[in-house]
Amino acid sequence: MTLTEKVGQVNQRMYGWHAYERTEGGHRLTEAFEAEVAAFGGMGALYGLQRADAWSGVGFGTGIEAADGAHVCDTVQRYVVEHSRLGIPVLLVEEMPHGHQALDGTVLPVNLAVGASWDPELYAEATEAAAAELRARGGHVALVSALDMLRDPRWGRAEECFGEDPYLAARLTEALVEGADRAGVAVVLKHFAGQGATAGGRNSAATELGARELHEIHLMAAQAGVRAGAAGVMAAYNEFDGLPCVANRPLLSGLLRERWGFEGIVMADGDAVDRLVRLTGDPVAAGALALDAGCDLSLWDACFPRLGEAVERGLVDERTLDTAVARVLTLKFRLGLFDRTGTPAAESSRRGPDPVELSERLARASITLLAHEGDVLPLSPAASRIAVLGPNADSVAQQIGDYTAPQRPGTGVTVLAGIRAAAGAAEVVYAPGCDLVGGDVSGVPEAVRLAASCDVAVLVLGGSSARSGDTVFDSNGAAIVTAGPPSGMTCGEGVDLADLSLPEGQSALWRAVAATGVPTVVVLVQGRPHALPTPPGAATAVLSAWYPGPWGGRAVADVLFGRAQPRGRLPVSVPRSAAQLPVFYNAKDHGYRGYVDQPATAAYPFGHGLSYTTVVHGPPRLSRDRVTADDPALTCRVTVRNTGRHPVRETVQLYVRRVSGSTSWPRIRELRGFAALDLPPGASAEAVFRVDAGTLASPGRDLEPVVEPGEVLLETGPSADRTQGSALRIDQPAGNSGPATPGRK
Amino acid sequence: MTLTEKVGQVNQRMYGWHAYERTEGGHRLTEAFEAEVAAFGGMGALYGLQRADAWSGVGFGTGIEAADGAHVCDTVQRYVVEHSRLGIPVLLVEEMPHGHQALDGTVLPVNLAVGASWDPELYAEATEAAAAELRARGGHVALVSALDMLRDPRWGRAEECFGEDPYLAARLTEALVEGADRAGVAVVLKHFAGQGATAGGRNSAATELGARELHEIHLMAAQAGVRAGAAGVMAAYNEFDGLPCVANRPLLSGLLRERWGFEGIVMADGDAVDRLVRLTGDPVAAGALALDAGCDLSLWDACFPRLGEAVERGLVDERTLDTAVARVLTLKFRLGLFDRTGTPAAESSRRGPDPVELSERLARASITLLAHEGDVLPLSPAASRIAVLGPNADSVAQQIGDYTAPQRPGTGVTVLAGIRAAAGAAEVVYAPGCDLVGGDVSGVPEAVRLAASCDVAVLVLGGSSARSGDTVFDSNGAAIVTAGPPSGMTCGEGVDLADLSLPEGQSALWRAVAATGVPTVVVLVQGRPHALPTPPGAATAVLSAWYPGPWGGRAVADVLFGRAQPRGRLPVSVPRSAAQLPVFYNAKDHGYRGYVDQPATAAYPFGHGLSYTTVVHGPPRLSRDRVTADDPALTCRVTVRNTGRHPVRETVQLYVRRVSGSTSWPRIRELRGFAALDLPPGASAEAVFRVDAGTLASPGRDLEPVVEPGEVLLETGPSADRTQGSALRIDQPAGNSGPATPGRK
Repeated sequence: MTLTEKVGQVNQRMYGWHAYERTEGGHRLTEAFEAEVAAFGGMGALYGLQRADAWSGVGFGTGIEAADGAHVCDTVQRYVVEHSRLGIPVLLVEEMPHGHQALDGTVLPVNLAVGASWDPELYAEATEAAAAELRARGGHVALVSALDMLRDPRWGRAEECFGEDPYLAARLTEALVEGADRAGVAVVLKHFAGQGATAGGRNSAATELGARELHEIHLMAAQAGVRAGAAGVMAAYNEFDGLPCVANRPLLSGLLRERWGFEGIVMADGDAVDRLVRLTGDPVAAGALALDAGCDLSLWDACFPRLGEAVERGLVDERTLDTAVARVLTLKFRLGLFDRTGTPAAESSRRGPDPVELSERLARASITLLAHEGDVLPLSPAASRIAVLGPNADSVAQQIGDYTAPQRPGTGVTVLAGIRAAAGAAEVVYAPGCDLVGGDVSGVPEAVRLAASCDVAVLVLGGSSARSGDTVFDSNGAAIVTAGPPSGMTCGEGVDLADLSLPEGQSALWRAVAATGVPTVVVLVQGRPHALPTPPGAATAVLSAWYPGPWGGRAVADVLFGRAQPRGRLPVSVPRSAAQLPVFYNAKDHGYRGYVDQPATAAYPFGHGLSYTTVVHGPPRLSRDRVTADDPALTCRVTVRNTGRHPVRETVQLYVRRVSGSTSWPRIRELRGFAALDLPPGASAEAVFRVDAGTLASPGRDLEPVVEPGEVLLETGPSADRTQGSALRIDQPAGNSGPATPGRK
Repeated sequence: MTLTEKVGQVNQRMYGWHAYERTEGGHRLTEAFEAEVAAFGGMGALYGLQRADAWSGVGFGTGIEAADGAHVCDTVQRYVVEHSRLGIPVLLVEEMPHGHQALDGTVLPVNLAVGASWDPELYAEATEAAAAELRARGGHVALVSALDMLRDPRWGRAEECFGEDPYLAARLTEALVEGADRAGVAVVLKHFAGQGATAGGRNSAATELGARELHEIHLMAAQAGVRAGAAGVMAAYNEFDGLPCVANRPLLSGLLRERWGFEGIVMADGDAVDRLVRLTGDPVAAGALALDAGCDLSLWDACFPRLGEAVERGLVDERTLDTAVARVLTLKFRLGLFDRTGTPAAESSRRGPDPVELSERLARASITLLAHEGDVLPLSPAASRIAVLGPNADSVAQQIGDYTAPQRPGTGVTVLAGIRAAAGAAEVVYAPGCDLVGGDVSGVPEAVRLAASCDVAVLVLGGSSARSGDTVFDSNGAAIVTAGPPSGMTCGEGVDLADLSLPEGQSALWRAVAATGVPTVVVLVQGRPHALPTPPGAATAVLSAWYPGPWGGRAVADVLFGRAQPRGRLPVSVPRSAAQLPVFYNAKDHGYRGYVDQPATAAYPFGHGLSYTTVVHGPPRLSRDRVTADDPALTCRVTVRNTGRHPVRETVQLYVRRVSGSTSWPRIRELRGFAALDLPPGASAEAVFRVDAGTLASPGRDLEPVVEPGEVLLETGPSADRTQGSALRIDQPAGNSGPATPGRK
């Protein structure tokens, strides 16, 4: 291979939607695409050929619909193979954050909703379905957010996180990789590493994260994903130890490759290598820096395409480039691209599970009942008149989240539509009441009048990540926050929010409707936890539906009417206010007593979620209460009983709480297991947790996981704040006497 | 020395106020004190013999007044020497956070006010005066907060910080050490290290701080203090890399002793070693852990007194104990204790500068004019009636901050008293208007009525760290935040505040008084920056007087009436709200565009402070615009002109902004110099900054300071947001070719 051909293999410069033009009868390749292939004697990867959204400007008139995907991919692939000396096929890389971000791609609930389901099996099925769609239309690699921990809900990308907890995220990341793999799609996990820790919840900003916090919180999902067989990770925008991840050799090479043995690819985030010019003063040196650090494939930047110069100038060794090329080629080989060139269309005949049904099922599983004062839910069949109010009640766009393609008219079911369909003989009346953002309360009186005339009011509030044609975008697709009146967005990439309260208009609507005394159900359609009035008021139920996806309105209605049980559990702590951040449950255990003006604890804690019944958890029963550090296996059992009158799917949670013997300061508690039990009324069942070294290990002094002697509590319960614990003594292995010395390495 | 005698030398278990009892004619030693000496065959150090405050319960009836201090110390010292085999004198350690925290100790403005003065020379004088008081009454060692960076104003100890900036804190820490040294007092600098970075501004809580952030922000003041000759540092409560500082060998030994060559003592913070039992499960092992990490002297804990057992059990080497003992003895020797035993009273004849005058001068220098709409200040001599309003207008206790002893009746001048004294013929009327905390607005109408009848209203608002007999304290003297109605405290150790807005009652008072249209001056008496309404309203001036100390009311009046110029400059960024934290000016430079609902920038930036005149800053003129990394010295000159009608003391600030060539991500800008110019109306003068390696160095890849090649801007101006820059190219030294590779070590 020539130097140029090598550079071509690690190049992913082009926006995929610039590679084709829609014609009357179909699609044709652009001159820009042909020039790119010619410039590098081939093409390493093509990003987002089928991406459609407000940023790319691709819609139904201009883009690639499902029926055409395979053919267009085939055309692209043939062109690359036939117009390059070596005939190496191109890797087709697509966004699949929660469904393939393409026309006709089935949208799933956002990751934060997936986190609320606590259901890796269901998520694996849904991912398989989405990946099958992607594969059927010719894509090879799916980019999926999975690794970012939601440590600060001000962050606009909160919705892309599985939550605040590393263990929960790790289980869902495994499910993601496995589900995609079943459909033959390779996954690149976003973002490596620590992006959720950026200061102030500010997108792409600094992180003050130390190595220990990184290891204790931010790496578990990545390691699980790598072990599950992820094809790659995306090096994040944020910095660690002063180095942006794309330039971070200790992270990308020392940790990921040498320590973890990862053999897949590292893809730079979009334009991330360009940002290194701030350090190097020179784009050629920036590309060399990223390659040398361990990036194999770039994205959009102007630096990697100049790696040839970097090699010629001696800024990076050509063997380093060879290694990156080899990784890209290995991935293409593993995906069968060398076998199948020219026949991806054959994939389209593959039949998988129904993605729409799975999207809705996942939405249903994610709905989380936060509060329930009085006996509002499930809605009484006797209700003859229902008011549906609020700015999120009747918008599919506002319930699907960021990173979504335009939806075909008629796709999806809003909450209003879902309630109308489910309400039977009851009359359903509707008013938006207020705008999503801002303080205009002119619509409130009408909404109050409607509510007062009804048996129950369903208030659909929250946020929105819906981009529009007016949205201004950065070069990497993040929305740009501009001065002036608030736009309709409060969430999504680039849209961070300082004050987590609901906007003034929504708050006023809630207060006014609650003041009528009419039983009120607040349904939050949101991509982050908002700070809510607590207690919410008498005769009020509050549910978070997150961004439940297009069919989320039906899922919400099912839960409201009791056709489905609320079974979501919080994957993130709900703060009382932005002023008390951070509030994650697994903080270091310093016995903090709270601020003088408000508690430091969450309004609704991690793991919390009510049901329509009452559930009693027994204490954890351990098969052994004393183990040795080298042989710590035991079984922990909990008996759980449904003492109410509705069925329940109860998620029993296992936490480890370190009492003593750690070489670093322990956290309050850490999730290390969960199990769902389906309990009819009156039934009881046992959750059984196998506790082993993986359960008990934590990063030791050298940051390697180790089971440290001492005492822990194994705690179980329905949420992080309602646990019962049993003590477990962990002894030094025989022959290894003397106490640990935490301070000495 | 026996093992017990050695342990005695590193023991500082006893609260000093338990060592004596007040008698009719004087003071006598307690049996507890005698028992402590007997138990260890001597006494290493005695903490706070003369401390007086609500926590210790020591007041004028029970404590040690200035006139008795030397004699009591002499009694203590004689007892220790005469009742121990070796006759080693005891080190008398006292709190001197801002003046000696003892009866009759002159209180200085809090550190945050000192930070606002930007005046190390004045602070050194004031410190010398305070230290001379301490020395005259027999104390040897002063504990002084200096090292904590105010990175989160929610923290109740914000008032103890010199501000958010490491350079400013470093210069003031030097002044502190030098001032105390002139009076013969040794300083232990609090707290080492990174305590200002605790998550959420929560006292003693976790920090997620990484090594780079620690080096770039949190160590500069400590290193400056060590170089200036500090006798010791206090190991902090917070953790770093999972280890509390008292257990952190890499920090206390690797960095402080091996890298910096520090030969003084490391004192553990109060009870901090006890907290290690959470790690070790055993107090004896906890003491061993702290000693092994590098602590030489403990404070109050029950672990260090058991170090004998630790040695006997083999948990720590006796040679490690010997090293700690040697350091304590060396300090006693350096302080002349072995020479002077029995004659400390001789010190009392020493005459120094007048501490009261210096306290007031420092207060005057710290008053910071934040906003000035209209032409309210200085107050017109024609004003015939002045309303002084607000809950901080007439309380000495509320203007002196935390860590203060009870004041003799009649000590100090409140803002109300200061204005009354300065107002001449004008009538001064007063009403508190509201409580300090809470939302009771019943007093507002009367205040509004008074304001409306006056030519000007002076509203004295803010916070309070005043402890009372009702305050509940932790075992280390921090106030305990208890549930229930808010107490009168909003600040100080243990009193963290989530919402940084002024309490509801104060906000209502401000709004109501401003609405009268009467020109309004808001004076903030506060230990942290509060979030304020911006803009403040027409015909409104806003000043921060911080906690200006007992005579601060006179200082405020001097500024209001134009007898003194407002010359304070913000040592900390004033946030718009707690929701947008962090807001410090020297954030990493990622071009963040702001939250969707509010900016991410400060309401009032670091370095900001208005004056009564107008000042024009010229651009920085560099003697060279190109240097080599090994020879970077140059001169930077700025011409500044007073174009208005009042004199001004203008603080010209020098910032370095890295443009390219750094091996780690640069900050927006970093303060690296400041100079005060006194300018009569119409005058101009030149500020001259000597730029050298110290100015340009930053922590390199290995965290050692290094001048990295590339491009920087040298910026000067009146505040961090109003700078002008000149480019400086830094070349590789000759013979050291090739670009830097940031990612590789």
